Amino acid sequence: MSSEVMAMLQRQGSRAKAAAAELAALCTDTKNEALNHMADRLEAERDSIVRANAIDLEQGAANGLTSALLERLTLNDGRIAGMAQSLREIAALPDPIGEIVYSSRRPNGLDIYKVRSPIGVIGIIYESRPNVTADAAGLCLKAGNAVILRGGEEALNSNRAISSIIIGAAREKGVPEGAIQLIDSPDRGAVIGLMKMNEYLDLLIPRGGKGLKQVVQANATVPLVMTGMGNCHIYLDEFADFDKAMAITMNAKVQRPSVCNAAETLLVHAAAADRLLPPIAQALAAAGVELRGCERCRALVPSMLEATEEDWDTEYLELIMAVKTVDSLEGAIGHIRRYGTGHSEAIVSEHYGNVQEFLRRIDAAAVYANASTRFTDGGEFGLGAEMGISTQKLHARGPMGLAELTSARYIIYGQGQVR
Amino acid sequence: MSSEVMAMLQRQGSRAKAAAAELAALCTDTKNEALNHMADRLEAERDSIVRANAIDLEQGAANGLTSALLERLTLNDGRIAGMAQSLREIAALPDPIGEIVYSSRRPNGLDIYKVRSPIGVIGIIYESRPNVTADAAGLCLKAGNAVILRGGEEALNSNRAISSIIIGAAREKGVPEGAIQLIDSPDRGAVIGLMKMNEYLDLLIPRGGKGLKQVVQANATVPLVMTGMGNCHIYLDEFADFDKAMAITMNAKVQRPSVCNAAETLLVHAAAADRLLPPIAQALAAAGVELRGCERCRALVPSMLEATEEDWDTEYLELIMAVKTVDSLEGAIGHIRRYGTGHSEAIVSEHYGNVQEFLRRIDAAAVYANASTRFTDGGEFGLGAEMGISTQKLHARGPMGLAELTSARYIIYGQGQVR
Repeated sequence: MSSEVMAMLQRQGSRAKAAAAELAALCTDTKNEALNHMADRLEAERDSIVRANAIDLEQGAANGLTSALLERLTLNDGRIAGMAQSLREIAALPDPIGEIVYSSRRPNGLDIYKVRSPIGVIGIIYESRPNVTADAAGLCLKAGNAVILRGGEEALNSNRAISSIIIGAAREKGVPEGAIQLIDSPDRGAVIGLMKMNEYLDLLIPRGGKGLKQVVQANATVPLVMTGMGNCHIYLDEFADFDKAMAITMNAKVQRPSVCNAAETLLVHAAAADRLLPPIAQALAAAGVELRGCERCRALVPSMLEATEEDWDTEYLELIMAVKTVDSLEGAIGHIRRYGTGHSEAIVSEHYGNVQEFLRRIDAAAVYANASTRFTDGGEFGLGAEMGISTQKLHARGPMGLAELTSARYIIYGQGQVR
Repeated sequence: MSSEVMAMLQRQGSRAKAAAAELAALCTDTKNEALNHMADRLEAERDSIVRANAIDLEQGAANGLTSALLERLTLNDGRIAGMAQSLREIAALPDPIGEIVYSSRRPNGLDIYKVRSPIGVIGIIYESRPNVTADAAGLCLKAGNAVILRGGEEALNSNRAISSIIIGAAREKGVPEGAIQLIDSPDRGAVIGLMKMNEYLDLLIPRGGKGLKQVVQANATVPLVMTGMGNCHIYLDEFADFDKAMAITMNAKVQRPSVCNAAETLLVHAAAADRLLPPIAQALAAAGVELRGCERCRALVPSMLEATEEDWDTEYLELIMAVKTVDSLEGAIGHIRRYGTGHSEAIVSEHYGNVQEFLRRIDAAAVYANASTRFTDGGEFGLGAEMGISTQKLHARGPMGLAELTSARYIIYGQGQVR
C-alpha cells in the first residue's frame, strides 16, 4: 500500500470516528428524512449514475469481464429505482437504537436496562454490484453507525456517482460530515489497509467468497463478520417425498444460481437413488445444469461428468451441481460437516426421526426441513433489509439485519446504591 | 513455542472439536448431574487440592510474588466450598441451549425459529485465581461448549488438581472425553499457540489487563472477546448530592480495589470541588488510598501527590486514585472518552439534563447514574454466574453469562416450499 493511500485511510477513519460519536445521538426523524431524501436524489440524478456506470461497463468489457459479471455491474432506471425503494424501506423500519433488550429492577432498587446502541464505525468490502453502496450506507445510517465503503475496482465510477449523491443528500438533512464515505481509489492495498485499521474500525464486514476469506484470515486484525460464503447442500433422504425432492432441488439450484444460498451439492440416500436421481437429474439437465457425480450416481445417470474431490469443496455460483450418494443419514451429516461452509443446509424427508436428527446435528446458520435453501434472506425471514448472510458463530449468524448492526450498553439508574 | 507444545495443542484442539459435536446434543439432565457431581468431588477431595495449592504457594513465595497475588492464589476449605457452590448454582440455572430467541410463521407457511446453540470450542486464558478453573469449566459445560483452559504458571499445580477432579467427575456422568481440558504446561508459548488455533477454536476469552491485551492484539487470529480491563471513572457533577458522592466514591475505590469494576479516577466539576473534594479526599486518605491529583485539586488538598499523564491511563487495581477537576460535563465526557476502557462509568448528579446527557453519550459496557461502578457483575445484574466482563462491542458487552457463551441457528420447518 502506498503511503498516500495509507494517509487517506487514516483521514477517513478519523473523520468516521468523529461522525460516529454524533450519529449515536441523532434522532430517528432525522435519520429517516435523510434516507428518504437520499432515495429521492438517487432517482432525480439517475442520468448521471447511468453515465458513470457506462464508463465502468465499457472498461469492464475491454478488460474481459464475463457477461455474468457485466450483468451484475449494470445499472439502469429499474435498478436505480430499486436502490431508492430499498432506502425508503429502511426508513420505514423501526429504529433499533434505544430498544431495551433486557431489564431488571434489582432487590436493592437499581433499575438496570440493556439498551441497543450503535457499534461505531463499520467498514464494508464488496464486489461488482454497485447497489450495495446505497443499501449498506442506508442500513449503517439507520443503525447509527458511520460507514467506510470499499467496492470493487470494476465499479468505481458507478460507486463514486452513487456515493456522492447519497452523501450530499444525507448532509442536507443534518447527517454529520464523515458518516458515509467511499474509499475512492482503485489501489488494492486499501483493502488490506482497511483490515488493519484497529484504531478506527469497530467492525469490518467482508462480503465475498473463498478468495476474500483467505485474504481476510491472513491480514485482518480488526473485529469482523464474514458474509456470503455458501457451499450449500440438499440431502434427499431415504424417505424423501418425490415431488418435494424435485421442487426443492430444482429451486435451490436453478432459480438464481449466482447467490450464496443456492445449492451446490446434492446428496442422495443410496436406497432412494434409483427412485429419485434419474428424473431429478433429467430435470436439472433440461434446465441447463451440468452435473458432476460420484461413481454410483454415474451408474444410474451415465450422462453425468465425473466428480473430483475439488467438486465437493466448490461454491460454483453457476449452473453446475455436484451429486453424491450416501449410505445413511450419518453419511450425509458427515459430508456436510466436512465440506459445508455453515451457511444453509436442507433435508428432504417424511421421516420424523431423520428430520429431527438432521436439524439437531447440522451446525449451520440455517437448517431446513423440506424447504429450499434459497429462503435464507433477511426479507424472507421477516427481519427486513439485510447486509448479507453471516456464516460465523459470534455476534451475528444468518441474515445481518439492523439489529445485527448494533451493540448494547447497560444503563443503570440508582439513588446512591453501593455494594 | 516448542514443537512438542504445538503438537500437544493440536491434539487437545482436535479432541475438543470432537467433544463439542457430542456436547451440543447432550441433554440438560446429564449436564446438571455432571455439574453437581463435579461439585461433590471437589469437596470430597479438598485435601488433595489444598496439598497441590501449598506447592504453588511455596514456589510463589520463593519467586517473590506479592502478598496480594499470594492471597489470590490461596485455596482453603472455604474457597473450595465456594467453587463447589458455584458449580451447583450453574446447575440450577436454566439451560440456555434450545431457547427460541426469535420466531416467525411466514406468509408462505414456513415456520422459522432462531434457536440458541453452543458456540463449539472455547479457549480461556486467565491468571492466578485457580477458582476460575472450576467456574469456567462449569459455565462452558452448561452452555454445551468444549473448553480448553490456560491458567497462570504460578497456579499450575492447583489447576492440575482441580481439573483432574472435575474432568473425572464429568466423565463419570457421561460428559464426552475432551470436553474439559487443561493446557498442562508452564510454556508461555502455549498462550500464543492458543491464540492462533483457528482450525479448532471458535472463541478465545482472554481475562486480564493491558499487558495481556497487547499480546492478544499482536498475535491472535481466532475470534475473541476481551474481558477484565477496567479504567473506571466516577464523575461528581456540579449538582452532585454530597452524601451520594461520598458513599459512591468510597465504595467504588475502597470496597474491593483489586477488581476490574473498581474506580481508578475521580473527576470533579470545578464549581463543586470546594464543596466535595476536601472531605472526600480526607475519607479516602483515612481508608488508606493514595491520591494523585491535578494542580487545581492539589490547591484544595495539598496532601495529594502530583498526577502525571500516565495516571489518567492507569488501572491501578490497588488503593491509589487519580483525581482531576473538569470545567464542565463536556470536560468529563471528553476525559472518559479519551482514557476510559469502555467498562463502567458513573455520574453523581441531581441534575436531570446532565444525567441524561452522560448516560446517552458515554460509550461503555455499563453507564451509571448515582450508583457505584462495583455493581457491574453478572450476579448483581440478575444474569447469574458469569465468565468476566466484556469491554468489546461485538457479540457480548458487559457481564458474559451463559447466554453470551452461545451462538444461534435458524431452524426452518417447511412442507415443500420454494421461492
